[in-house]
Amino acid sequence: MNEFELIARLTAGLARGKGVIVGVGDDCAVLDMGAPDHWQLFKTDAVVEGVHFTTDTPRAKVGRKALARCLSDIAAMGGTPTYALVTLVLPRGFDPAEVETIYSGLRTLAAQHEVSIVGGETTAGTGGLLISISLLGWVPKGMALLRSSARAGDAIFVSGELGGSLAGRHLDFEPRLAEAQWLNRHFDVHAMIDLSDGLAGDLRHVLKASGVGAELLGQMVPVSRAAKLRARAESAAKPPLLAALTDGEDFELLFTVAPGDAVAVKDAWASRFPELKLTCVGRIVAQPGLKIVTEHGVRELTEHGYTHFQ
Amino acid sequence: MNEFELIARLTAGLARGKGVIVGVGDDCAVLDMGAPDHWQLFKTDAVVEGVHFTTDTPRAKVGRKALARCLSDIAAMGGTPTYALVTLVLPRGFDPAEVETIYSGLRTLAAQHEVSIVGGETTAGTGGLLISISLLGWVPKGMALLRSSARAGDAIFVSGELGGSLAGRHLDFEPRLAEAQWLNRHFDVHAMIDLSDGLAGDLRHVLKASGVGAELLGQMVPVSRAAKLRARAESAAKPPLLAALTDGEDFELLFTVAPGDAVAVKDAWASRFPELKLTCVGRIVAQPGLKIVTEHGVRELTEHGYTHFQ
Repeated sequence: MNEFELIARLTAGLARGKGVIVGVGDDCAVLDMGAPDHWQLFKTDAVVEGVHFTTDTPRAKVGRKALARCLSDIAAMGGTPTYALVTLVLPRGFDPAEVETIYSGLRTLAAQHEVSIVGGETTAGTGGLLISISLLGWVPKGMALLRSSARAGDAIFVSGELGGSLAGRHLDFEPRLAEAQWLNRHFDVHAMIDLSDGLAGDLRHVLKASGVGAELLGQMVPVSRAAKLRARAESAAKPPLLAALTDGEDFELLFTVAPGDAVAVKDAWASRFPELKLTCVGRIVAQPGLKIVTEHGVRELTEHGYTHFQ
Repeated sequence: MNEFELIARLTAGLARGKGVIVGVGDDCAVLDMGAPDHWQLFKTDAVVEGVHFTTDTPRAKVGRKALARCLSDIAAMGGTPTYALVTLVLPRGFDPAEVETIYSGLRTLAAQHEVSIVGGETTAGTGGLLISISLLGWVPKGMALLRSSARAGDAIFVSGELGGSLAGRHLDFEPRLAEAQWLNRHFDVHAMIDLSDGLAGDLRHVLKASGVGAELLGQMVPVSRAAKLRARAESAAKPPLLAALTDGEDFELLFTVAPGDAVAVKDAWASRFPELKLTCVGRIVAQPGLKIVTEHGVRELTEHGYTHFQ
C-alpha cells in the first residue's frame, strides 16, 4: 500500500461537513466560510530532514522550501495566499541560531508574497528537523481550479522545464502564484495541479479525479538542463525524458484548457511571461489511462512502467 | 533560552499584516477575513512521541489527544472549531493499521464537536510518530477572549481540578468548548487561557500579556485526586499544591472577570454545569508578579521558585 492508497483509505470515512466545497483529494481544501465573494483555501505541508532535505542543506533554504511548497499548492488552485502558521520540530541539541536562520528564509519568501506569519510553535522532537507549514488563502467564489475538471479534448500545458530538480531547483523554485492567478482571471482553465510528484504522477492524479485519460507527446515534454546534464554525466542516471516525467519537485503548473483556447493561452502567456516557457505536452482523451507517444510508437505509461524507457 | 524566549525572538520581526487582529502570542491567531459578523481563529499544534505520549500509548488516544489540544486552544478564545487538517509523520516501518487507529480516535472527537477533517498529509519521518493538527474556528466579531485583557481587581477562576494529568487525564480530557462559549455569550469575560503549562505558568502568560500581577490563594486551588494520590504514594512526588500549580496538561480554563461579576458567574455556572467545578483561586493586582498566599504567609511564585514548596 503506497501513500496515496493509505490516504484514500483513511479519508474515505470522513464526513463532508457544512461549507466544504472540496475536502480531501485536491491541492488544498476549499471552504465556504460565509464571505460574500470568496472561498477560503486551507493547506498543510511538512518537510522532513532526510526526506525533503539533508543535514547539509543551508537552513535558510530549508525554511524557504517549506513555505514555497505550500505556496505552490495555493497557486495550483488559482488562489492567493494570506496567513501562515509555522511548526518547527527541532532535533535534540539544536542551535537556536539555526532556528533564526530557518525563519529568515521563511520570512523573506513570505514577505515577497504578502503572507503574514501569524504564529506557530516550536517543539522538541526525537528525529531530524521537521518544518510543517499551515497556510490559508482565498480564491474568488466559484473559481477554484480543481484536479477533477479536465475534459476529453483538452490541451495539456506545463510551465517551465522539468526533471533534475534535486540538483538545486527544489530549494529555490518560485511558486507560480502570479501565473496561476493570471490564468484563472483571463482564461477558462479546466483543471490545474502543481507538479510535486513528477509530470506522470501528477497528471495521473488529474486523470483519476476527472475520470479521463491522456496522451503525452514525448518530444514536446520540456526537459530541464539539469536533467540533461545528469544523464550525460552519470551512466546510471535516468534518460532525460524519464527524469522529466518522474523526478518530482518541479513545482511547475500543469493545467488543461479547451482545445479552442490553447492558441490564445499560449500567445497571451508568451507576451505576459516572456521568460517562463509554456508548453503544450499532449491532450486529454476519454479513454482512461496515460499513454505517451515517442519515436518508438505509443506506449502505456503505467505507474510501475518507467523501466521501459531505460 | 527557553521555548518562550525563543519564540519571542523569532516572531519579534514578523510584520503584522492586514486583517491580523491577534498574531503571535495568544492561544490562536485571530483574523478578520472580511466576513460581516465573525473573526476567524487559526491554530496549529503538534504531539511528538517521547514528549507528549510514549510508544506504549494506545494510538487512538494519541490521535484524540492531538486534536483535543487544538480544540482546547479554540475554547480558550471563546470560539467554535470548524475545519481541521491532519499531518502524520510516521516512523520507519509503521503499520498502516495503526494509522487507521490514530484516525479513529481523531474522527470520534471531531464528530463530537462537528469539526470536519478536510485533508492533510502522511509522510515518512526519521524519528518517532508525530501528529500535527491545523485547526480553524470562529468567534463573533469583537468577542475573542484574549490573554491580554485581565485588569487589576479581576477575580481569577479555574474550571475542574488541577495536577496529576499524566496519570491519564492528558489522554482523555474534554476540551472546554461548551463552557467557554457559554461564558463568552453570557458574561463580560476579561481574559482567558487554557491550562497547558500549569496554573502558575499559564497565569503568568496572562499577567505578562496584560501588564498586571496576581495573588493566588493556595488553599483555594482545586487539587485533583490524581495529584493527591501520587503525593501519598511516592515520597519523591511533588506536594499536591505544587503539582496543581505546575504539572501542566490540565486543559482546563482559566479566566478573569470584574469582581462585581464573580458571584453571578459562579452561580450561573453551578446551575449550567453542575458536574464541573468552578473555583475562584485569587485576584488580579496592579503590581506585576505572581504571589501565593498559604498558611506559611505570602510568597513570590517565581518561574524557578517552586522548590520553596518542597
